Amino acid sequence: MKAVVYHGPAQRSVEDVPEPHILTPSDAIVEVTTTTICGSDLHILKGDVPAVQPGTIIGHEAVGIVKEVGASVTKFKPGDRVLCSCVNACGVCSYCRKNLPSHCLGEEGTSGIGWIQDHLINGTQAEYIRMPYADNSMYHIPDNVSNEAALMLCDILPTGFEIGVMKGKVQPGDVVAIVGAGPIGLSTVMTCDFYGPSRIIVIDLDPSRLDAAKEFGATNTVLSSSKDWIEQVNALTDGGLGVDVAIEAVGIPQTFDMCTKIVRPGGAIANVGVHGKPVELHLEDLWIHDINISTGLVSTTTIPMLLKLVAQNKIDPSRFISHRFNFDEFDQAWDTFSNAKHTKALKVLITKESA
Amino acid sequence: MKAVVYHGPAQRSVEDVPEPHILTPSDAIVEVTTTTICGSDLHILKGDVPAVQPGTIIGHEAVGIVKEVGASVTKFKPGDRVLCSCVNACGVCSYCRKNLPSHCLGEEGTSGIGWIQDHLINGTQAEYIRMPYADNSMYHIPDNVSNEAALMLCDILPTGFEIGVMKGKVQPGDVVAIVGAGPIGLSTVMTCDFYGPSRIIVIDLDPSRLDAAKEFGATNTVLSSSKDWIEQVNALTDGGLGVDVAIEAVGIPQTFDMCTKIVRPGGAIANVGVHGKPVELHLEDLWIHDINISTGLVSTTTIPMLLKLVAQNKIDPSRFISHRFNFDEFDQAWDTFSNAKHTKALKVLITKESA
Amino acid sequence: MKAVVYHGPAQRSVEDVPEPHILTPSDAIVEVTTTTICGSDLHILKGDVPAVQPGTIIGHEAVGIVKEVGASVTKFKPGDRVLCSCVNACGVCSYCRKNLPSHCLGEEGTSGIGWIQDHLINGTQAEYIRMPYADNSMYHIPDNVSNEAALMLCDILPTGFEIGVMKGKVQPGDVVAIVGAGPIGLSTVMTCDFYGPSRIIVIDLDPSRLDAAKEFGATNTVLSSSKDWIEQVNALTDGGLGVDVAIEAVGIPQTFDMCTKIVRPGGAIANVGVHGKPVELHLEDLWIHDINISTGLVSTTTIPMLLKLVAQNKIDPSRFISHRFNFDEFDQAWDTFSNAKHTKALKVLITKESA
Amino acid sequence: MKAVVYHGPAQRSVEDVPEPHILTPSDAIVEVTTTTICGSDLHILKGDVPAVQPGTIIGHEAVGIVKEVGASVTKFKPGDRVLCSCVNACGVCSYCRKNLPSHCLGEEGTSGIGWIQDHLINGTQAEYIRMPYADNSMYHIPDNVSNEAALMLCDILPTGFEIGVMKGKVQPGDVVAIVGAGPIGLSTVMTCDFYGPSRIIVIDLDPSRLDAAKEFGATNTVLSSSKDWIEQVNALTDGGLGVDVAIEAVGIPQTFDMCTKIVRPGGAIANVGVHGKPVELHLEDLWIHDINISTGLVSTTTIPMLLKLVAQNKIDPSRFISHRFNFDEFDQAWDTFSNAKHTKALKVLITKESA
Repeated sequence: MKAVVYHGPAQRSVEDVPEPHILTPSDAIVEVTTTTICGSDLHILKGDVPAVQPGTIIGHEAVGIVKEVGASVTKFKPGDRVLCSCVNACGVCSYCRKNLPSHCLGEEGTSGIGWIQDHLINGTQAEYIRMPYADNSMYHIPDNVSNEAALMLCDILPTGFEIGVMKGKVQPGDVVAIVGAGPIGLSTVMTCDFYGPSRIIVIDLDPSRLDAAKEFGATNTVLSSSKDWIEQVNALTDGGLGVDVAIEAVGIPQTFDMCTKIVRPGGAIANVGVHGKPVELHLEDLWIHDINISTGLVSTTTIPMLLKLVAQNKIDPSRFISHRFNFDEFDQAWDTFSNAKHTKALKVLITKESA
Repeated sequence: MKAVVYHGPAQRSVEDVPEPHILTPSDAIVEVTTTTICGSDLHILKGDVPAVQPGTIIGHEAVGIVKEVGASVTKFKPGDRVLCSCVNACGVCSYCRKNLPSHCLGEEGTSGIGWIQDHLINGTQAEYIRMPYADNSMYHIPDNVSNEAALMLCDILPTGFEIGVMKGKVQPGDVVAIVGAGPIGLSTVMTCDFYGPSRIIVIDLDPSRLDAAKEFGATNTVLSSSKDWIEQVNALTDGGLGVDVAIEAVGIPQTFDMCTKIVRPGGAIANVGVHGKPVELHLEDLWIHDINISTGLVSTTTIPMLLKLVAQNKIDPSRFISHRFNFDEFDQAWDTFSNAKHTKALKVLITKESA
Repeated sequence: MKAVVYHGPAQRSVEDVPEPHILTPSDAIVEVTTTTICGSDLHILKGDVPAVQPGTIIGHEAVGIVKEVGASVTKFKPGDRVLCSCVNACGVCSYCRKNLPSHCLGEEGTSGIGWIQDHLINGTQAEYIRMPYADNSMYHIPDNVSNEAALMLCDILPTGFEIGVMKGKVQPGDVVAIVGAGPIGLSTVMTCDFYGPSRIIVIDLDPSRLDAAKEFGATNTVLSSSKDWIEQVNALTDGGLGVDVAIEAVGIPQTFDMCTKIVRPGGAIANVGVHGKPVELHLEDLWIHDINISTGLVSTTTIPMLLKLVAQNKIDPSRFISHRFNFDEFDQAWDTFSNAKHTKALKVLITKESA
Repeated sequence: MKAVVYHGPAQRSVEDVPEPHILTPSDAIVEVTTTTICGSDLHILKGDVPAVQPGTIIGHEAVGIVKEVGASVTKFKPGDRVLCSCVNACGVCSYCRKNLPSHCLGEEGTSGIGWIQDHLINGTQAEYIRMPYADNSMYHIPDNVSNEAALMLCDILPTGFEIGVMKGKVQPGDVVAIVGAGPIGLSTVMTCDFYGPSRIIVIDLDPSRLDAAKEFGATNTVLSSSKDWIEQVNALTDGGLGVDVAIEAVGIPQTFDMCTKIVRPGGAIANVGVHGKPVELHLEDLWIHDINISTGLVSTTTIPMLLKLVAQNKIDPSRFISHRFNFDEFDQAWDTFSNAKHTKALKVLITKESA
């Protein structure tokens, strides 16, 4: 079958590889009908994630059709249309049982991470994928939810919601600032509204991204290159108190530091960005401020809930899709997504020709 | 009246100063019968808290007898025995109304901090003290609670409980580590047990402090100078997962960093220490770990609850008192407390001769 | 001044009474510019609330202009435009300090209830009102919020939100059913959306009220006179599990019982209705269902938050106003509101001629 | 094998029945070394639980040794010493995934109840038992935890803790009242202390049970036959406010009503008792009281945590065991437990001779 394979830093190729097959009774084999590329795939390709072995198929987002299930799979049968979570949850370990499968210990208790596709095993940019722990890692898609809307629930929308909005504990009436208006920042904008904030302020360097943020629901935008960006933000915060919740959606020291400068006493910083370096945390100022800093990898436990909201037309995640390709155009899809600055790509959809 | 006055870095003197009087209708004047010295008073004396003006009376912990009340004070009358919180709460601002008077905006909305004694106004190491916002800042002491037990509830015990235990969200069965076995660390040890942890591990450089920690309720102790201190801690954490809650009770970069090294995915770091420098936060590792970091200044909203537990003999805060002095011995008290390393002082009690 | 006075069951009159004046230092006198009638005022007039003494002025909702303040009032001055909460909070008692002023013990600790206007003291259907504990019971109104929008925040909107939505713990994706589409039911419909439910099902006997419910945001409506109303509701609940949250907004045994029949295991019943009789609770069935039943009187602690959402145009509470009168037409206003079944009255606005 | 079999109301017999065997890949067969009788088994024998078919083996508490496991069981192997939960959790359905396996829908989504042993399938009063969903329904027992201590964690201790203490949301400093000092009431007494209440008041008709309650940790006891029992309770509640949490641990209308009479505004009633009749709920008084009423069937999700606390010697559940029998004495065990009033039985231990 055709797949996008990682061959070490900066080396990927679309090539023919053997199809996967059932390895344990809880596996399912899914024919991928739609997949996409994640920002973290770019990190992998740069070689930033050393755990990824050369030869691994890239991708951890997929919607598809079940082809075959292992002996202990009970919720799915061949032919089912399914959403494949980016997290595979054993459903048995202590982390899974407290709804934190992002740190699933796996059946043997050795792994400590629920994100395994394109990390520890082959991923989704392929014609078929093996899904371990299928019963706890896949979801039936309601008839009125499209493949492309469902695809946005594999990773990006739950990430913004669980790691940004929920960990930030956004409450009705809150003033929320989101630093970074890329796809992950926009996913927090879209899901932030579930908790009725009074303001959603988006901060970014790029004016065109700020325009996109407004379309996704930002009430205010601030250019971070402005000298007075802090004053602009504070002017929107209940008489200058600072924001209730600051969400970091970039992953560099400067943007994290920006969050610490605008959060009010008693407020929260939710880090969603993937960081490659340490940050300097000004505890000499912050120790007294009653702030809360959270980090996290998505657990995707909110997928069923998000699917309901999509089915009820409360949110439309297909709005993230800026470009569309088919399985013959994996390279073009990668080129487009890698050059988001110029292509204005948010999420690129890659669909099987026949699907 | 006699008082301990700050005259700039490293300069304090016991001297005669004018008695305080009622300035606003919500004030009370309290005759101090018992006071003590806080670790943060040492910081003030070093000049670490620039907001403190020379000429300010030091101290923010006091038990006393009400001498006079302002026109709008309704809960207290002269003669009442009272506990004076280290936080003065206006009871009206948005922070007070969400139970966070540590960031009380005050009546005019200008201050932003509830800790004002020995910070923005005169403090408690004196014969009399003016208590602004008396109704929301003082507490009647039950008959069977001693002055000295009550004194420990002005700051230290609520600080350990609110900023360490509650913000760390200790839950039944948790493995808790406390880095630092000084008075503030021990206050988290004592109050940690309200939430039924399975282990309370105390980590410190000083073996005699670790012995004290055991007396206060630590189930395990680890010398931080051991090369394998991390392994020793991890061996106590449900198969090496790390601790559920790590409480920082020192206030230097190294001890904060220790907390980040022993907390398990999904766990919490509660910073109680007063920091003077930034710390390096390893987000390149921690972004994926689902951890929570909290900071805070005590609000003392738990004083009424703690008073009940003392009255019911559930806790005995007088155990913190290692040395006793009277108002003629302020200097000796300061010398003893300043040299805790050698004197083994925890809290020093300073009692009015006639009390 | 002119006022609506209760003279015993079924007896009210509009008459001239003396103007109120400051009684304690925390009082304010407010010139009422806009008031309204509450469903509970109808209960009072029926004699259902024996604590109300004949001679009491009715009403507990008002927007007005501060005329005079007591010596200890710090947040308000004459001329300020203010929203008067239906709850007067001393800000000092144990209930106020845990954000439950609905059970304010008052300064002397004797009352146990924060709702005192038109209950224990004179109310708001008058030209002037005395507001005890003014600092903790009144709110400045932002310039871009109208008197009539603010008036809906004195009682009805916080009641629906605090007692229905918040106590019911509505979560994103939840299926919510609201039994009763009167003003209080509609206030839960409007505020329910702050928490992103997937469905808001409104159940009532009156088709025209169900139409109103749809305008306020109901996603589905069910006529309670239908034989199969339960089946209709269940068909909307994730495969027949029942609703996550059932909100009782009528106040009779039948409607409470309806809630217990449609709530799923693990779900919640939030009682908002004012009941006059006991209800039969089928614990022989429900003991095993993991349900939660809450009751409550509004504390109005969410007024500041709701004001922000109105100022930001997130909600428009003036939609509740179905009829408008002036101070010469108190009787017509009462007649209209008392005959809501025929007049289709939701909230009637009564405005001072000169305002 | 020998087993206690239900043959319809009031009919049980100890008899030889076929041994169970693996039916689905997630099953385990466990050799029972220790079992006991639950209060609900008495209900079953009375015929109060119509779902139980004649011919069913009674009992849902067991500690044993794994004899055989199905193909998809990964956490257990023959020879393991295990605690068998009274709840069998599929680990996959929506209830299991939100930590509420008490309402497990099972693999086919048809059951809606996690309690199936001695209810829908054969139970534990037998030499061998089949445990469906073994991975999510059994627990390894730490070496230093005895069989008999572990046995108390199959049902009774988690029930008291989860349904009484946790649903009642006991907080540090709370005044807690427990109505009913039978085994289930005592289990709430023992676990209540995990949250540091200031008082644990136990109320019962039987003075000898009140004595037992004191040994388990009650700070105060009240005879419910006293005319002034309410006054006695209120005298212990912060100046007569009422209790913060009232736990119903009997299951009849009178005891439920008692709870509603002693709970303070803002407080909680946690129903643990198994009820056979409706209760009259006085909403005409309670609608305004801001109370919370919870019900529930244990989910046993706290077993791992409780096992840790037992292993750490924080609690000693073997104190529940009042009588000991072996597998030849099932009838004597039943007689003793059925006549608890005279035998003072709490929990009766039934141990395999060779164990």
